[in-house]
Amino acid sequence: MPETNEDLYAVADFCLVPIGTGEPSVAEYVAECARVLEKTGLTHKMAHCGFEEGPWSAVMKAIHDCHAAVHAKGAPRIATDIRIGTRVDKELQPGTGNAHKVKRVEEILARDAKA
Amino acid sequence: MPETNEDLYAVADFCLVPIGTGEPSVAEYVAECARVLEKTGLTHKMAHCGFEEGPWSAVMKAIHDCHAAVHAKGAPRIATDIRIGTRVDKELQPGTGNAHKVKRVEEILARDAKA
Amino acid sequence: MPETNEDLYAVADFCLVPIGTGEPSVAEYVAECARVLEKTGLTHKMAHCGFEEGPWSAVMKAIHDCHAAVHAKGAPRIATDIRIGTRVDKELQPGTGNAHKVKRVEEILARDAKA
Amino acid sequence: MPETNEDLYAVADFCLVPIGTGEPSVAEYVAECARVLEKTGLTHKMAHCGFEEGPWSAVMKAIHDCHAAVHAKGAPRIATDIRIGTRVDKELQPGTGNAHKVKRVEEILARDAKA
Repeated sequence: MPETNEDLYAVADFCLVPIGTGEPSVAEYVAECARVLEKTGLTHKMAHCGFEEGPWSAVMKAIHDCHAAVHAKGAPRIATDIRIGTRVDKELQPGTGNAHKVKRVEEILARDAKA
Repeated sequence: MPETNEDLYAVADFCLVPIGTGEPSVAEYVAECARVLEKTGLTHKMAHCGFEEGPWSAVMKAIHDCHAAVHAKGAPRIATDIRIGTRVDKELQPGTGNAHKVKRVEEILARDAKA
Repeated sequence: MPETNEDLYAVADFCLVPIGTGEPSVAEYVAECARVLEKTGLTHKMAHCGFEEGPWSAVMKAIHDCHAAVHAKGAPRIATDIRIGTRVDKELQPGTGNAHKVKRVEEILARDAKA
Repeated sequence: MPETNEDLYAVADFCLVPIGTGEPSVAEYVAECARVLEKTGLTHKMAHCGFEEGPWSAVMKAIHDCHAAVHAKGAPRIATDIRIGTRVDKELQPGTGNAHKVKRVEEILARDAKA
Protein backbone atom coordinates (compact mmCIF):
# COMPACT_ATOMS: atom_id res chain seq x y z
CA MET A 1 0.00 0.00 0.00
CA PRO A 2 1.31 3.43 -0.84
CA GLU A 3 1.59 6.32 1.52
CA THR A 4 -1.58 8.11 0.58
CA ASN A 5 -1.39 11.12 2.82
CA GLU A 6 0.69 12.90 0.26
CA ASP A 7 -1.39 14.83 -2.24
CA LEU A 8 -0.89 13.80 -5.87
CA TYR A 9 -0.51 16.63 -8.36
CA ALA A 10 -3.58 16.57 -10.58
CA VAL A 11 -4.62 18.04 -13.90
CA ALA A 12 -8.37 18.26 -14.28
CA ASP A 13 -11.17 19.53 -16.39
CA PHE A 14 -14.76 19.55 -15.28
CA CYS A 15 -18.15 20.34 -16.70
CA LEU A 16 -20.87 21.35 -14.27
CA VAL A 17 -24.56 21.07 -15.18
CA PRO A 18 -27.25 22.71 -13.03
CA ILE A 19 -30.51 20.71 -12.88
CA GLY A 20 -34.00 21.98 -12.20
CA THR A 21 -33.29 25.62 -12.92
CA GLY A 22 -36.23 26.12 -15.26
CA GLU A 23 -34.09 27.66 -17.98
CA PRO A 24 -31.84 26.04 -20.52
CA SER A 25 -29.08 28.63 -20.22
CA VAL A 26 -26.17 27.67 -17.99
CA ALA A 27 -23.89 30.64 -18.65
CA GLU A 28 -24.65 32.44 -15.37
CA TYR A 29 -23.73 29.33 -13.41
CA VAL A 30 -20.55 28.79 -15.36
CA ALA A 31 -19.60 32.42 -14.75
CA GLU A 32 -20.16 31.81 -11.03
CA CYS A 33 -17.68 28.94 -11.22
CA ALA A 34 -15.17 31.21 -12.94
CA ARG A 35 -15.45 33.59 -9.98
CA VAL A 36 -14.86 30.71 -7.57
CA LEU A 37 -11.81 29.43 -9.46
CA GLU A 38 -10.39 32.93 -9.66
CA LYS A 39 -10.05 32.95 -5.88
CA THR A 40 -8.32 29.58 -5.58
CA GLY A 41 -4.82 30.50 -6.64
CA LEU A 42 -4.78 27.36 -8.81
CA THR A 43 -3.76 27.54 -12.46
CA HIS A 44 -7.14 27.51 -14.15
CA LYS A 45 -9.30 28.49 -17.08
CA MET A 46 -13.08 28.50 -17.19
CA ALA A 47 -14.85 28.68 -20.52
CA HIS A 48 -17.83 26.40 -20.91
CA CYS A 49 -16.02 23.77 -18.92
CA GLY A 50 -13.27 24.45 -16.43
CA PHE A 51 -9.61 23.44 -16.44
CA GLU A 52 -7.46 23.56 -13.38
CA GLU A 53 -4.45 21.87 -11.88
CA GLY A 54 -2.74 21.66 -8.54
CA PRO A 55 -2.68 19.37 -5.51
CA TRP A 56 -5.57 16.87 -5.76
CA SER A 57 -7.31 18.06 -2.63
CA ALA A 58 -7.14 21.74 -3.68
CA VAL A 59 -8.47 20.89 -7.14
CA MET A 60 -11.38 18.96 -5.65
CA LYS A 61 -12.07 21.61 -3.02
CA ALA A 62 -12.35 24.19 -5.82
CA ILE A 63 -14.95 22.10 -7.65
CA HIS A 64 -16.82 21.56 -4.38
CA ASP A 65 -16.91 25.32 -3.88
CA CYS A 66 -18.26 25.75 -7.42
CA HIS A 67 -21.11 23.39 -6.46
CA ALA A 68 -21.77 25.35 -3.28
CA ALA A 69 -21.79 28.64 -5.23
CA VAL A 70 -24.11 27.30 -7.93
CA HIS A 71 -26.50 25.89 -5.31
CA ALA A 72 -26.44 29.30 -3.61
CA LYS A 73 -27.32 30.87 -6.96
CA GLY A 74 -30.48 28.77 -7.07
CA ALA A 75 -29.76 25.40 -8.69
CA PRO A 76 -31.37 22.70 -6.51
CA ARG A 77 -29.29 19.91 -8.02
CA ILE A 78 -25.99 19.70 -9.89
CA ALA A 79 -24.34 16.98 -11.94
CA THR A 80 -20.66 17.40 -12.73
CA ASP A 81 -18.32 15.37 -14.86
CA ILE A 82 -14.67 15.56 -13.88
CA ARG A 83 -11.75 14.17 -15.83
CA ILE A 84 -8.65 14.08 -13.70
CA GLY A 85 -5.19 12.75 -14.37
CA THR A 86 -2.13 12.03 -12.28
CA ARG A 87 1.28 10.70 -13.24
CA VAL A 88 4.33 9.57 -11.35
CA ASP A 89 6.70 9.05 -14.29
CA LYS A 90 7.70 12.68 -14.43
CA GLU A 91 7.64 15.75 -12.28
CA LEU A 92 5.29 18.37 -13.69
CA GLN A 93 6.28 21.98 -13.18
CA PRO A 94 3.34 23.36 -11.21
CA GLY A 95 0.86 24.99 -13.53
CA THR A 96 2.22 23.47 -16.74
CA GLY A 97 0.29 20.21 -17.00
CA ASN A 98 -2.48 21.23 -19.35
CA ALA A 99 -0.27 23.49 -21.42
CA HIS A 100 2.33 20.74 -21.75
CA LYS A 101 -0.19 18.26 -23.15
CA VAL A 102 -1.38 20.71 -25.77
CA LYS A 103 2.18 21.67 -26.75
CA ARG A 104 3.30 18.07 -27.35
CA VAL A 105 0.38 17.43 -29.70
CA GLU A 106 1.03 20.66 -31.57
CA GLU A 107 4.68 19.74 -32.05
CA ILE A 108 3.72 16.39 -33.55
CA LEU A 109 1.21 18.00 -35.90
CA ALA A 110 3.77 20.64 -36.90
CA ARG A 111 6.10 17.82 -38.00
CA ASP A 112 3.25 16.57 -40.25
CA ALA A 113 2.96 19.95 -41.87
CA LYS A 114 6.67 19.97 -42.72
CA ALA A 115 6.80 16.39 -43.99
CA MET B 1 -21.28 33.72 -1.66
CA PRO B 2 -22.21 30.54 0.15
CA GLU B 3 -20.48 29.19 3.18
CA THR B 4 -18.30 26.63 1.50
CA ASN B 5 -16.53 25.13 4.45
CA GLU B 6 -19.39 22.76 4.95
CA ASP B 7 -18.98 19.54 3.00
CA LEU B 8 -21.77 18.81 0.51
CA TYR B 9 -23.10 15.28 0.47
CA ALA B 10 -22.10 13.75 -2.85
CA VAL B 11 -23.09 10.74 -4.92
CA ALA B 12 -20.38 9.71 -7.35
CA ASP B 13 -19.29 7.11 -9.81
CA PHE B 14 -15.84 7.00 -11.28
CA CYS B 15 -13.96 5.07 -13.90
CA LEU B 16 -10.21 4.85 -13.54
CA VAL B 17 -7.96 4.00 -16.51
CA PRO B 18 -4.28 3.13 -16.03
CA ILE B 19 -2.05 4.37 -18.87
CA GLY B 20 1.28 3.00 -19.99
CA THR B 21 0.95 -0.39 -18.34
CA GLY B 22 1.86 -2.48 -21.38
CA GLU B 23 -1.19 -4.70 -21.05
CA PRO B 24 -4.77 -4.08 -22.06
CA SER B 25 -6.27 -5.68 -18.95
CA VAL B 26 -7.30 -3.30 -16.20
CA ALA B 27 -8.95 -5.77 -13.83
CA GLU B 28 -6.05 -5.95 -11.37
CA TYR B 29 -6.08 -2.18 -11.01
CA VAL B 30 -9.83 -2.05 -10.56
CA ALA B 31 -9.56 -4.74 -7.88
CA GLU B 32 -6.95 -2.58 -6.14
CA CYS B 33 -9.47 0.27 -6.08
CA ALA B 34 -12.08 -2.05 -4.58
CA ARG B 35 -9.63 -2.79 -1.75
CA VAL B 36 -9.09 0.94 -1.20
CA LEU B 37 -12.82 1.70 -1.15
CA GLU B 38 -13.43 -1.17 1.24
CA LYS B 39 -11.37 0.64 3.86
CA THR B 40 -13.10 3.99 3.53
CA GLY B 41 -16.29 3.33 5.42
CA LEU B 42 -18.21 5.02 2.58
CA THR B 43 -21.20 3.34 0.99
CA HIS B 44 -19.63 1.97 -2.17
CA LYS B 45 -19.60 -0.62 -4.90
CA MET B 46 -16.74 -1.34 -7.28
CA ALA B 47 -17.38 -3.36 -10.40
CA HIS B 48 -15.70 -2.11 -13.55
CA CYS B 49 -16.37 1.41 -12.41
CA GLY B 50 -16.84 2.48 -8.82
CA PHE B 51 -19.83 4.00 -7.05
CA GLU B 52 -19.60 5.71 -3.73
CA GLU B 53 -21.29 8.40 -1.73
CA GLY B 54 -20.60 10.44 1.35
CA PRO B 55 -19.21 13.85 2.23
CA TRP B 56 -17.57 15.38 -0.87
CA SER B 57 -14.10 15.53 0.65
CA ALA B 58 -14.23 11.88 1.79
CA VAL B 59 -15.47 10.75 -1.62
CA MET B 60 -12.65 12.60 -3.37
CA LYS B 61 -10.05 11.44 -0.86
CA ALA B 62 -11.09 7.85 -1.61
CA ILE B 63 -10.57 8.33 -5.34
CA HIS B 64 -7.22 10.01 -4.65
CA ASP B 65 -6.20 6.98 -2.64
CA CYS B 66 -7.24 4.72 -5.52
CA HIS B 67 -4.88 6.69 -7.75
CA ALA B 68 -2.08 6.38 -5.22
CA ALA B 69 -2.69 2.62 -4.93
CA VAL B 70 -2.79 2.10 -8.71
CA HIS B 71 0.42 4.13 -9.16
CA ALA B 72 2.01 1.99 -6.45
CA LYS B 73 0.93 -1.09 -8.39
CA GLY B 74 2.92 0.11 -11.39
CA ALA B 75 0.78 2.39 -13.54
CA PRO B 76 2.88 5.46 -14.42
CA ARG B 77 -0.14 7.53 -15.40
CA ILE B 78 -3.85 7.43 -14.68
CA ALA B 79 -6.87 9.11 -16.25
CA THR B 80 -10.11 9.02 -14.28
CA ASP B 81 -13.56 10.19 -15.16
CA ILE B 82 -15.75 11.12 -12.19
CA ARG B 83 -19.45 11.92 -12.31
CA ILE B 84 -20.54 13.56 -9.10
CA GLY B 85 -23.85 15.00 -8.03
CA THR B 86 -25.06 17.12 -5.15
CA ARG B 87 -28.50 18.44 -4.31
CA VAL B 88 -29.89 20.84 -1.76
CA ASP B 89 -33.62 20.34 -2.42
CA LYS B 90 -33.85 17.29 -0.20
CA GLU B 91 -31.94 15.64 2.57
CA LEU B 92 -30.51 12.30 1.44
CA GLN B 93 -30.33 9.61 4.06
CA PRO B 94 -26.62 8.80 4.16
CA GLY B 95 -25.85 5.84 1.93
CA THR B 96 -29.12 5.91 0.01
CA GLY B 97 -28.36 8.30 -2.85
CA ASN B 98 -27.50 5.82 -5.59
CA ALA B 99 -30.10 3.28 -4.49
CA HIS B 100 -32.77 5.97 -4.40
CA LYS B 101 -32.13 7.03 -7.99
CA VAL B 102 -32.39 3.46 -9.23
CA LYS B 103 -35.56 2.78 -7.25
CA ARG B 104 -37.42 5.82 -8.61
CA VAL B 105 -36.73 4.76 -12.19
CA GLU B 106 -37.82 1.19 -11.47
CA GLU B 107 -41.08 2.41 -9.98
CA ILE B 108 -41.85 4.44 -13.09
CA LEU B 109 -41.08 1.51 -15.37
CA ALA B 110 -43.21 -0.79 -13.20
CA ARG B 111 -46.15 1.55 -13.80
CA ASP B 112 -45.57 1.10 -17.55
CA ALA B 113 -45.77 -2.65 -17.19
CA LYS B 114 -49.12 -2.40 -15.43
CA ALA B 115 -50.59 0.15 -17.82
CA MET C 1 -4.90 4.66 -42.01
CA PRO C 2 -7.25 1.93 -40.94
CA GLU C 3 -10.33 0.86 -42.78
CA THR C 4 -12.88 2.74 -40.75
CA ASN C 5 -16.05 1.69 -42.45
CA GLU C 6 -16.19 -1.37 -40.28
CA ASP C 7 -18.05 -0.76 -37.04
CA LEU C 8 -16.01 -1.36 -33.88
CA TYR C 9 -17.75 -3.31 -31.12
CA ALA C 10 -18.27 -0.93 -28.23
CA VAL C 11 -19.10 -1.19 -24.54
CA ALA C 12 -20.60 2.01 -23.18
CA ASP C 13 -22.24 3.61 -20.23
CA PHE C 14 -23.89 6.98 -20.36
CA CYS C 15 -25.47 9.44 -18.01
CA LEU C 16 -28.02 11.85 -19.43
CA VAL C 17 -28.90 15.08 -17.66
CA PRO C 18 -31.91 17.17 -18.73
CA ILE C 19 -31.36 20.94 -18.38
CA GLY C 20 -33.94 23.65 -17.92
CA THR C 21 -36.74 21.39 -16.75
CA GLY C 22 -37.75 23.33 -13.68
CA GLU C 23 -37.63 20.32 -11.40
CA PRO C 24 -34.67 18.59 -9.85
CA SER C 25 -36.00 15.07 -10.41
CA VAL C 26 -34.65 13.27 -13.46
CA ALA C 27 -36.28 9.87 -12.94
CA GLU C 28 -39.02 10.34 -15.54
CA TYR C 29 -36.43 11.15 -18.18
CA VAL C 30 -34.24 8.23 -17.25
CA ALA C 31 -37.29 5.96 -17.47
CA GLU C 32 -37.92 7.33 -20.95
CA CYS C 33 -34.38 6.31 -21.90
CA ALA C 34 -35.03 2.83 -20.54
CA ARG C 35 -38.01 2.57 -22.89
CA VAL C 36 -35.85 3.66 -25.83
CA LEU C 37 -33.09 1.18 -25.03
CA GLU C 38 -35.63 -1.59 -24.63
CA LYS C 39 -36.49 -1.25 -28.31
CA THR C 40 -32.92 -1.32 -29.60
CA GLY C 41 -32.15 -5.01 -29.36
CA LEU C 42 -28.79 -4.10 -27.80
CA THR C 43 -27.65 -5.70 -24.58
CA HIS C 44 -28.44 -2.97 -22.11
CA LYS C 45 -29.35 -1.96 -18.59
CA MET C 46 -30.74 1.39 -17.49
CA ALA C 47 -30.72 2.34 -13.84
CA HIS C 48 -29.69 5.90 -13.07
CA CYS C 49 -27.16 5.71 -15.85
CA GLY C 50 -27.40 3.39 -18.83
CA PHE C 51 -25.12 0.56 -19.92
CA GLU C 52 -25.21 -0.87 -23.38
CA GLU C 53 -22.99 -2.60 -25.86
CA GLY C 54 -23.02 -3.48 -29.54
CA PRO C 55 -21.73 -2.05 -32.80
CA TRP C 56 -20.51 1.53 -32.24
CA SER C 57 -23.04 3.09 -34.59
CA ALA C 58 -25.97 1.23 -32.99
CA VAL C 59 -24.83 2.18 -29.50
CA MET C 60 -24.58 5.84 -30.48
CA LYS C 61 -27.87 5.79 -32.38
CA ALA C 62 -29.55 4.47 -29.22
CA ILE C 63 -28.19 7.35 -27.14
CA HIS C 64 -29.25 9.79 -29.86
CA ASP C 65 -32.75 8.37 -29.69
CA CYS C 66 -32.73 8.80 -25.90
CA HIS C 67 -31.93 12.50 -26.45
CA ALA C 68 -34.76 12.81 -28.99
CA ALA C 69 -37.20 11.10 -26.59
CA VAL C 70 -36.16 13.28 -23.64
CA HIS C 71 -36.46 16.45 -25.73
CA ALA C 72 -39.92 15.24 -26.80
CA LYS C 73 -40.78 14.82 -23.13
CA GLY C 74 -40.07 18.49 -22.55
CA ALA C 75 -36.39 19.00 -21.77
CA PRO C 76 -35.13 21.93 -23.85
CA ARG C 77 -31.49 21.01 -23.43
CA ILE C 78 -29.58 17.85 -22.55
CA ALA C 79 -26.00 17.17 -21.48
CA THR C 80 -24.82 13.58 -21.62
CA ASP C 81 -21.58 11.99 -20.54
CA ILE C 82 -20.65 8.81 -22.38
CA ARG C 83 -17.82 6.47 -21.51
CA ILE C 84 -17.13 4.11 -24.35
CA GLY C 85 -14.49 1.46 -24.84
CA THR C 86 -13.24 -0.61 -27.73
CA ARG C 87 -10.53 -3.25 -27.93
CA VAL C 88 -8.88 -5.17 -30.71
CA ASP C 89 -6.78 -7.56 -28.62
CA LYS C 90 -9.60 -10.00 -28.13
CA GLU C 91 -12.92 -10.85 -29.65
CA LEU C 92 -15.76 -10.10 -27.26
CA GLN C 93 -18.74 -12.39 -27.42
CA PRO C 94 -21.58 -10.04 -28.29
CA GLY C 95 -23.36 -8.93 -25.15
CA THR C 96 -20.67 -10.04 -22.72
CA GLY C 97 -18.41 -6.97 -22.53
CA ASN C 98 -19.73 -5.33 -19.40
CA ALA C 99 -20.40 -8.61 -17.62
CA HIS C 100 -16.89 -9.81 -18.44
CA LYS C 101 -15.26 -6.76 -16.88
CA VAL C 102 -17.21 -7.17 -13.67
CA LYS C 103 -16.51 -10.91 -13.49
CA ARG C 104 -12.73 -10.50 -13.82
CA VAL C 105 -12.63 -8.02 -10.93
CA GLU C 106 -14.80 -10.28 -8.77
CA GLU C 107 -12.49 -13.24 -9.40
CA ILE C 108 -9.49 -11.22 -8.30
CA LEU C 109 -11.23 -10.04 -5.14
CA ALA C 110 -12.39 -13.60 -4.41
CA ARG C 111 -8.73 -14.67 -4.43
CA ASP C 112 -8.07 -11.98 -1.78
CA ALA C 113 -10.77 -13.43 0.42
CA LYS C 114 -9.20 -16.88 0.26
CA ALA C 115 -5.63 -15.71 0.80
CA MET D 1 -42.44 9.18 -29.25
CA PRO D 2 -40.42 11.64 -31.29
CA GLU D 3 -39.37 11.19 -34.86
CA THR D 4 -35.85 9.98 -34.26
CA ASN D 5 -34.63 9.59 -37.79
CA GLU D 6 -33.69 13.21 -37.89
CA ASP D 7 -30.17 13.85 -36.69
CA LEU D 8 -29.91 16.20 -33.70
CA TYR D 9 -27.24 18.87 -33.91
CA ALA D 10 -24.65 18.06 -31.28
CA VAL D 11 -21.81 19.86 -29.56
CA ALA D 12 -19.25 17.47 -28.12
CA ASP D 13 -15.90 17.17 -26.49
CA PHE D 14 -14.12 13.90 -25.99
CA CYS D 15 -11.03 12.60 -24.30
CA LEU D 16 -9.51 9.41 -25.65
CA VAL D 17 -7.17 7.27 -23.55
CA PRO D 18 -5.16 4.44 -25.10
CA ILE D 19 -4.68 1.44 -22.79
CA GLY D 20 -1.93 -1.14 -22.82
CA THR D 21 0.52 0.86 -24.86
CA GLY D 22 3.50 0.40 -22.55
CA GLU D 23 4.27 4.12 -22.45
CA PRO D 24 2.66 6.89 -20.46
CA SER D 25 2.74 9.42 -23.29
CA VAL D 26 -0.48 9.80 -25.25
CA ALA D 27 0.49 12.71 -27.49
CA GLU D 28 1.10 10.60 -30.61
CA TYR D 29 -2.38 9.12 -30.31
CA VAL D 30 -4.01 12.47 -29.75
CA ALA D 31 -2.20 13.80 -32.82
CA GLU D 32 -3.61 10.86 -34.79
CA CYS D 33 -7.09 11.92 -33.70
CA ALA D 34 -6.37 15.47 -34.85
CA ARG D 35 -5.55 14.07 -38.30
CA VAL D 36 -8.81 12.12 -38.33
CA LEU D 37 -10.89 15.14 -37.30
CA GLU D 38 -9.15 17.29 -39.90
CA LYS D 39 -10.69 15.11 -42.61
CA THR D 40 -14.24 15.22 -41.30
CA GLY D 41 -15.32 18.66 -42.40
CA LEU D 42 -16.82 19.17 -38.92
CA THR D 43 -16.02 22.27 -36.90
CA HIS D 44 -13.41 20.91 -34.54
CA LYS D 45 -10.39 21.52 -32.37
CA MET D 46 -8.06 18.90 -30.97
CA ALA D 47 -5.70 19.80 -28.17
CA HIS D 48 -5.39 17.27 -25.38
CA CYS D 49 -9.05 16.53 -25.72
CA GLY D 50 -11.11 17.11 -28.84
CA PHE D 51 -14.03 19.43 -29.48
CA GLU D 52 -16.34 19.06 -32.42
CA GLU D 53 -19.87 19.78 -33.43
CA GLY D 54 -22.23 18.82 -36.22
CA PRO D 55 -24.97 16.29 -36.84
CA TRP D 56 -24.94 13.66 -34.06
CA SER D 57 -24.15 10.76 -36.36
CA ALA D 58 -21.26 12.60 -38.03
CA VAL D 59 -19.83 13.61 -34.65
CA MET D 60 -19.98 10.01 -33.41
CA LYS D 61 -18.60 8.61 -36.65
CA ALA D 62 -15.61 10.94 -36.28
CA ILE D 63 -14.88 9.65 -32.77
CA HIS D 64 -15.30 6.07 -34.01
CA ASP D 65 -12.74 6.77 -36.70
CA CYS D 66 -10.37 8.18 -34.08
CA HIS D 67 -10.67 4.86 -32.21
CA ALA D 68 -10.00 2.92 -35.42
CA ALA D 69 -6.95 5.09 -36.17
CA VAL D 70 -5.56 4.76 -32.64
CA HIS D 71 -6.05 0.98 -32.69
CA ALA D 72 -4.24 0.92 -36.06
CA LYS D 73 -1.40 2.87 -34.43
CA GLY D 74 -0.97 0.06 -31.91
CA ALA D 75 -3.25 0.65 -28.92
CA PRO D 76 -4.97 -2.66 -28.11
CA ARG D 77 -7.68 -1.01 -26.06
CA ILE D 78 -9.16 2.45 -25.79
CA ALA D 79 -11.38 4.18 -23.23
CA THR D 80 -13.01 7.43 -24.27
CA ASP D 81 -15.12 9.87 -22.36
CA ILE D 82 -17.53 11.93 -24.44
CA ARG D 83 -19.60 14.87 -23.25
CA ILE D 84 -22.28 15.70 -25.74
CA GLY D 85 -25.08 18.23 -25.66
CA THR D 86 -28.16 18.89 -27.73
CA ARG D 87 -30.83 21.56 -27.41
CA VAL D 88 -34.14 22.23 -29.07
CA ASP D 89 -34.90 25.63 -27.57
CA LYS D 90 -32.86 27.50 -30.13
CA GLU D 91 -31.40 26.96 -33.53
CA LEU D 92 -27.61 26.91 -33.41
CA GLN D 93 -25.82 28.32 -36.41
CA PRO D 94 -23.74 25.37 -37.60
CA GLY D 95 -20.25 25.57 -36.19
CA THR D 96 -21.03 28.12 -33.50
CA GLY D 97 -22.13 25.96 -30.57
CA ASN D 98 -18.89 25.77 -28.61
CA ALA D 99 -17.89 29.34 -29.41
CA HIS D 100 -21.29 30.60 -28.36
CA LYS D 101 -21.07 28.97 -24.93
CA VAL D 102 -17.67 30.49 -24.26
CA LYS D 103 -18.77 33.95 -25.46
CA ARG D 104 -21.81 34.07 -23.16
CA VAL D 105 -19.68 33.30 -20.11
CA GLU D 106 -17.10 35.91 -21.11
CA GLU D 107 -19.79 38.55 -21.47
CA ILE D 108 -21.07 37.85 -17.98
CA LEU D 109 -17.58 38.03 -16.50
CA ALA D 110 -16.89 41.25 -18.41
CA ARG D 111 -19.91 42.79 -16.67
CA ASP D 112 -18.31 41.85 -13.33
CA ALA D 113 -15.14 43.66 -14.27
CA LYS D 114 -17.07 46.83 -15.02
CA ALA D 115 -19.24 46.69 -11.91
